[in-house]
Amino acid sequence: MEKVSFIGLGAMGGAMARNVQRGGFTLGVYNRSPERAEPFRADGAAVYASASEAARASEAVVIMVTDPPALEAVLTGEDGLLAGLAGKGAGSGGDSTLVVNMSTVSPAATLAAAERVRAAGARFVDAPVSGTVKPAQDGTLVVLAGGEAADLDAAEPLLQTMGKAVVRCGPVGQATRLKLVLNLMLGGMMQCLAEGLSLADSQGIDGKAVLQALAGGPMGAGLYQMKGDMMLDGRFAKQFPVDLMFKDLNLVLETAGQAHLPLPMTAAVRESFSAARGLGYGEEDMAAVIKVLRRLHTG
Amino acid sequence: MEKVSFIGLGAMGGAMARNVQRGGFTLGVYNRSPERAEPFRADGAAVYASASEAARASEAVVIMVTDPPALEAVLTGEDGLLAGLAGKGAGSGGDSTLVVNMSTVSPAATLAAAERVRAAGARFVDAPVSGTVKPAQDGTLVVLAGGEAADLDAAEPLLQTMGKAVVRCGPVGQATRLKLVLNLMLGGMMQCLAEGLSLADSQGIDGKAVLQALAGGPMGAGLYQMKGDMMLDGRFAKQFPVDLMFKDLNLVLETAGQAHLPLPMTAAVRESFSAARGLGYGEEDMAAVIKVLRRLHTG
Amino acid sequence: MEKVSFIGLGAMGGAMARNVQRGGFTLGVYNRSPERAEPFRADGAAVYASASEAARASEAVVIMVTDPPALEAVLTGEDGLLAGLAGKGAGSGGDSTLVVNMSTVSPAATLAAAERVRAAGARFVDAPVSGTVKPAQDGTLVVLAGGEAADLDAAEPLLQTMGKAVVRCGPVGQATRLKLVLNLMLGGMMQCLAEGLSLADSQGIDGKAVLQALAGGPMGAGLYQMKGDMMLDGRFAKQFPVDLMFKDLNLVLETAGQAHLPLPMTAAVRESFSAARGLGYGEEDMAAVIKVLRRLHTG
Amino acid sequence: MEKVSFIGLGAMGGAMARNVQRGGFTLGVYNRSPERAEPFRADGAAVYASASEAARASEAVVIMVTDPPALEAVLTGEDGLLAGLAGKGAGSGGDSTLVVNMSTVSPAATLAAAERVRAAGARFVDAPVSGTVKPAQDGTLVVLAGGEAADLDAAEPLLQTMGKAVVRCGPVGQATRLKLVLNLMLGGMMQCLAEGLSLADSQGIDGKAVLQALAGGPMGAGLYQMKGDMMLDGRFAKQFPVDLMFKDLNLVLETAGQAHLPLPMTAAVRESFSAARGLGYGEEDMAAVIKVLRRLHTG
Repeated sequence: MEKVSFIGLGAMGGAMARNVQRGGFTLGVYNRSPERAEPFRADGAAVYASASEAARASEAVVIMVTDPPALEAVLTGEDGLLAGLAGKGAGSGGDSTLVVNMSTVSPAATLAAAERVRAAGARFVDAPVSGTVKPAQDGTLVVLAGGEAADLDAAEPLLQTMGKAVVRCGPVGQATRLKLVLNLMLGGMMQCLAEGLSLADSQGIDGKAVLQALAGGPMGAGLYQMKGDMMLDGRFAKQFPVDLMFKDLNLVLETAGQAHLPLPMTAAVRESFSAARGLGYGEEDMAAVIKVLRRLHTG
Repeated sequence: MEKVSFIGLGAMGGAMARNVQRGGFTLGVYNRSPERAEPFRADGAAVYASASEAARASEAVVIMVTDPPALEAVLTGEDGLLAGLAGKGAGSGGDSTLVVNMSTVSPAATLAAAERVRAAGARFVDAPVSGTVKPAQDGTLVVLAGGEAADLDAAEPLLQTMGKAVVRCGPVGQATRLKLVLNLMLGGMMQCLAEGLSLADSQGIDGKAVLQALAGGPMGAGLYQMKGDMMLDGRFAKQFPVDLMFKDLNLVLETAGQAHLPLPMTAAVRESFSAARGLGYGEEDMAAVIKVLRRLHTG
Repeated sequence: MEKVSFIGLGAMGGAMARNVQRGGFTLGVYNRSPERAEPFRADGAAVYASASEAARASEAVVIMVTDPPALEAVLTGEDGLLAGLAGKGAGSGGDSTLVVNMSTVSPAATLAAAERVRAAGARFVDAPVSGTVKPAQDGTLVVLAGGEAADLDAAEPLLQTMGKAVVRCGPVGQATRLKLVLNLMLGGMMQCLAEGLSLADSQGIDGKAVLQALAGGPMGAGLYQMKGDMMLDGRFAKQFPVDLMFKDLNLVLETAGQAHLPLPMTAAVRESFSAARGLGYGEEDMAAVIKVLRRLHTG
Repeated sequence: MEKVSFIGLGAMGGAMARNVQRGGFTLGVYNRSPERAEPFRADGAAVYASASEAARASEAVVIMVTDPPALEAVLTGEDGLLAGLAGKGAGSGGDSTLVVNMSTVSPAATLAAAERVRAAGARFVDAPVSGTVKPAQDGTLVVLAGGEAADLDAAEPLLQTMGKAVVRCGPVGQATRLKLVLNLMLGGMMQCLAEGLSLADSQGIDGKAVLQALAGGPMGAGLYQMKGDMMLDGRFAKQFPVDLMFKDLNLVLETAGQAHLPLPMTAAVRESFSAARGLGYGEEDMAAVIKVLRRLHTG
């Protein structure tokens, strides 16, 4: 597998595509807004006019778009990926095109996409990532990967260019489900930090001492330093917005509810993010959840 | 300051005392059960018959005992630390004995101890630690330190032998309050992990994939690997028991309540630990909180 | 308006239809399982073979079915209500058929039904009820009514036969939304009672003393006596099942979330009902939520 | 038993004392601020200069004061109730003075008071009430009564003058514990109403329709009408203040925690009242808890 197309060149996708190219693959790109593709053309990548064209030209297609409607737009229509795949004629098994969806969408949307891709004669791997722009640039994302074992084997070298670890989760859909689990924990850790820093503040303890005490100890997650600084400095420019976390926590609770599993902490965390939305912070970074406690505490 | 006494030679205290000796201080020890002191005698440490004797013989006294009654027993009585301090006669300022309490007790108990130690003519530093037996052995604890700046300066070289970081928090009492903040986060992270692993399990995802996905990413705290393994293996031998976490969460909520600060996530976490006690897991490790979800989920 | 058809003759609907007849309206009935219609035939009601026939024969049609698929089945198909309405030709204004949906479905399903009924030339009133079988039999339901003022005026005498109070809530959809509000409170009160009785039990207080103390005081809701007796006697035969309450609480939280309104108590209550499902009580009466606390408390 | 002293003539106590007199008992009164006793003197009651004097002059003494320090002030000192009881000499059994404490204090404070009263040779009944000023005036309180059966029999006619129901709960302390259970439910119902009205408001439903729909149905508690009107009108003059509810919920959770009983809903409710305090509503009526949601929702 040498020829790889990358669809979706946003902050995350663009950085990841660079790493695919650096990793020795022959890169082609497609982005809905074509100007984002130009820097890649300058560096020798093929630039396609549509997802369909990208599909026809490649052995593997990576998709990294922002939400389910964007994924839908990539897949469908006469210029869509599915049309392109169908036009190639079904390869057989390992010869068929490998579609790697790295966009985070719901398990249901993932399974639906997989079914349609397979119906168009291609293979599908479900590979959302954990990590934000910096690790995307550094190629140190954690990649969650779901699919048939042979397809995961085929995708592995490609995924390795983007991440420092590829965690295999089982069949298609399981990687997306694991992403949900991680987002449950991400939301929980944000609220945990918000409550810890707020308690410290109420006791006259400098928040920087909290972050310093966390660093390097058993609770020392990098997230705390990064988001703790934002909370203490009052910087809430979005990396991962409140609205998106709220959406994910809803999906977590819906999924858990269907499994008859109570999640009492996550339920409380969801309401905190709901309150952050009520206060108008929906488009700020999830670190803004601390402002709910600040508003309640000082009136 | 050369001569240091260490009172309390349990799993934590014993390891910490070793590091004080390795750090070049002239060590003396006292332990309520004298057999724990014998290995130190073999290695050249003075062994005292009482806390009073330890106080009289040293420039600094470190206390590392398990709970408020044990601290009370160290301080009071005719053989107690206070009696020993009083018997030395008040030194003046930097000459007086430096008492460093590293036991975790409540802010109120810390302040009360400080007052009595000062009344006996000595100086007091409040220095609870974050970390368990392994970092205590390795000298990589995080030491939280509260006290007068001059006293913290005096204690610093001693504390450095036991920890890789000494976090200054303000006057006496603030280090204990910061410890409460850390325990809020510790309890929150345990429940967070328990909910994450339970959701994964309900979706047919191997818990090891969750731990693998966390490792090294922004959420990658060592705690998750250590406690996650215990949860997945069903090993709940106590390091930090449910009962103690419940007690600390009560203290957190009481403290926050007095400050008019709501902590909705911590409140939910407290109830989960209460449920763990109701199910009979009070003396197991705090990782046993996951069993509450397992009992609810499978009936 | 004299001729009224009643569609849906279950425990609730059957009792309500009786009261319509007793109230002096000329009753016709239709039920999917025809045997339930026979007792009404014996009492002089017309029995229709389809919803379509019921629609054609009546000035007003009341629908009281159990869930959205059942409502869908009533409305659609060649024998469906919509076909029957369309076949009558659009009356104009007050002459057109009045469709009164008393089934509890979601606001979205209500609005969709209203749109289709109106497109078929009829008028629509949204009229879910508060109360269970006993008040349905006694004609003492509380009827929530949403619709155009003129349509509500037209429906009023009919609704009065079934309820002791008709609460007007605004346009179509608002009655269903008010029903959601009531179910939020119903779920909250059940958990409130469960926690109160469990605390009493843990303190050696007879639960009957709790119920006695509630009765007649400002907290004295009939619900507490009815459900409290069930909880104390361990009788959980379903009147309003756990599964249905869980579904409604999900709808409540989804609705509140869309409005950016946090509901921290309801979120905790939802998890308790989720736990009840996890323990296998989904099809028991909502009073079974107390068994979650009992399982946690005694192990 | 004819001669009864009433200690504590506040809004509640004054109204209750009137009903004791109307019930045919020979009334004496004592109040710390003597001007409150004057209207009773005008109506023929004896007015005492101290609790001690009241104790010496009566067969039964009712205490209705606001908090534990006030109770302590009544009991102790040379003019205190205990001194007065001791001075009478111990009666034997049914001859000894009957002390009926109707003040709401903690179970521990109740038990301590009982022990001291008994040591002074008198009998003790624990009789907190459910209900506020209006039922106190009307003699329609619910009286919770704990004590020895013979003492409860002796107290019954007296308690009947103040309440429409006397609920026997077991030995001394149990009535106070039942009061805690009722206050758990009171706090839960307040939050339940606050969430329900807030959801209604967010959906454009008039809160009066919610209250109307509740009235007379199975959820129809008088509390909802009274507090619902206050919430809708924005009247928060205190009858039962937020601070007191918060204190009681802490006591509830502490008691439940000691019994290893989780109370997830109550925990969430406590945080809502904590938030109300954080917003500065501590001295307003507990109905002000709805303002927490309003502040979160509208920013």
